[in-house]
Amino acid sequence: MRGVRALVFDVFGTVVDWRGGVAREADAFLERFGARERDGARFADRWRAQYQPAMEPVRRGQRPFVVLDVLNRETLVAVLEATGVDVRDVPEEALGELSRAWHRLDPWPDAVEGLRRLKRDFVLGTLSNGNVALMVNMARRAGLPWDAILGAELVRTYKPEPAVYLGAAESLGLRPDQVCLVAAHNDDLAAARRCGLRTAFVPRPTEHGPDQTTDLEAAQDWEVAAPDLVALAERLGC
Amino acid sequence: MRGVRALVFDVFGTVVDWRGGVAREADAFLERFGARERDGARFADRWRAQYQPAMEPVRRGQRPFVVLDVLNRETLVAVLEATGVDVRDVPEEALGELSRAWHRLDPWPDAVEGLRRLKRDFVLGTLSNGNVALMVNMARRAGLPWDAILGAELVRTYKPEPAVYLGAAESLGLRPDQVCLVAAHNDDLAAARRCGLRTAFVPRPTEHGPDQTTDLEAAQDWEVAAPDLVALAERLGC
Repeated sequence: MRGVRALVFDVFGTVVDWRGGVAREADAFLERFGARERDGARFADRWRAQYQPAMEPVRRGQRPFVVLDVLNRETLVAVLEATGVDVRDVPEEALGELSRAWHRLDPWPDAVEGLRRLKRDFVLGTLSNGNVALMVNMARRAGLPWDAILGAELVRTYKPEPAVYLGAAESLGLRPDQVCLVAAHNDDLAAARRCGLRTAFVPRPTEHGPDQTTDLEAAQDWEVAAPDLVALAERLGC
Repeated sequence: MRGVRALVFDVFGTVVDWRGGVAREADAFLERFGARERDGARFADRWRAQYQPAMEPVRRGQRPFVVLDVLNRETLVAVLEATGVDVRDVPEEALGELSRAWHRLDPWPDAVEGLRRLKRDFVLGTLSNGNVALMVNMARRAGLPWDAILGAELVRTYKPEPAVYLGAAESLGLRPDQVCLVAAHNDDLAAARRCGLRTAFVPRPTEHGPDQTTDLEAAQDWEVAAPDLVALAERLGC
């Protein structure tokens, strides 16, 4: 990790608990609108399952870039229909509100303290597929002390496209090897490494719920691994 | 100001004192390299005079976008030559260091407190021609609590091009009339108003030194005017 000046973070799953946050808001919504199925956590999983496919046409250049808020809104409608909610019965305001549940996710318990400590010695940026407004609203609510909101919107494509990783380093005025991606996902770290960034793995073994089977351990010899962000700060001497 | 959700700030001159900061570093540099003229403040004024002309070809589409660090480096060489320094005698490291003096500018005395108070009620962004790395380094050194670094680099052109103002609002997920530009410069505010943003004037009567004749008062009926950023926070009830 010598020479690393900035840490950039995957956010959904690595810094915040998307499943718990979406489930909390979905529970209330599904009850209110009399859905056939009212399990918010299951709803969160279904919605999340639409996330990668929704970005794929943008990555391939088959669709002009739209921000994640737009994709989340589109996939929400599809998931609601599958859950037995007729979206024609749902006021526009309530749909918009639920579609922005991703702005109101809670950080994992170690995240705020870990980031505060890491910030003393490193520039901290987001490197998320989430858009700037989403990241800003989340950070203000959760107290995440980012120095800069970087990521997909900046370069108008989505991870794991190389432009997202390289664009973040360039914006920070750094070479790729002066930047380290912190993520709970081996595939994200692999893409960063292919671009020349350093890599730090922080597993989140319940990101997908109690029965998670993926990303439980490091799939490569990432430069650093730590059980959470406070431990990462300790490992890096912050 | 009803409905305003975000304040975006001109930075050079409005939040930080570029003349004092550049002069401080130029004084030491000109001494070290035996310049014919060794007045750091005069050097800062000459360098600053190159700022608008350097951006103009980018605004007109005659030159591909390059970040302000690159333009500052180019104009520094020209100004040094005019000051009687042969840049061939200057180590690359010293040139680079002085060209980044803009990363190390001090905030006006009211800026940090004013921004902290305003942040309670408003999203705070930069809306500067400075690049992301410059803004991040400045903010970390000076303690400027931005929620997001927006501005020229995001849209790859320079103020007062409309894309800079409109792009910031769009990134924040807001309509232009939900965003207010805070600036010490009437022409910047006029360009923001033409894009539909609200406007707040904070005069900086010594930005250009003791004999400043421009921007001493509001040239239009800006939505708000306040003598400094703490007073602006009070005016806005923060």
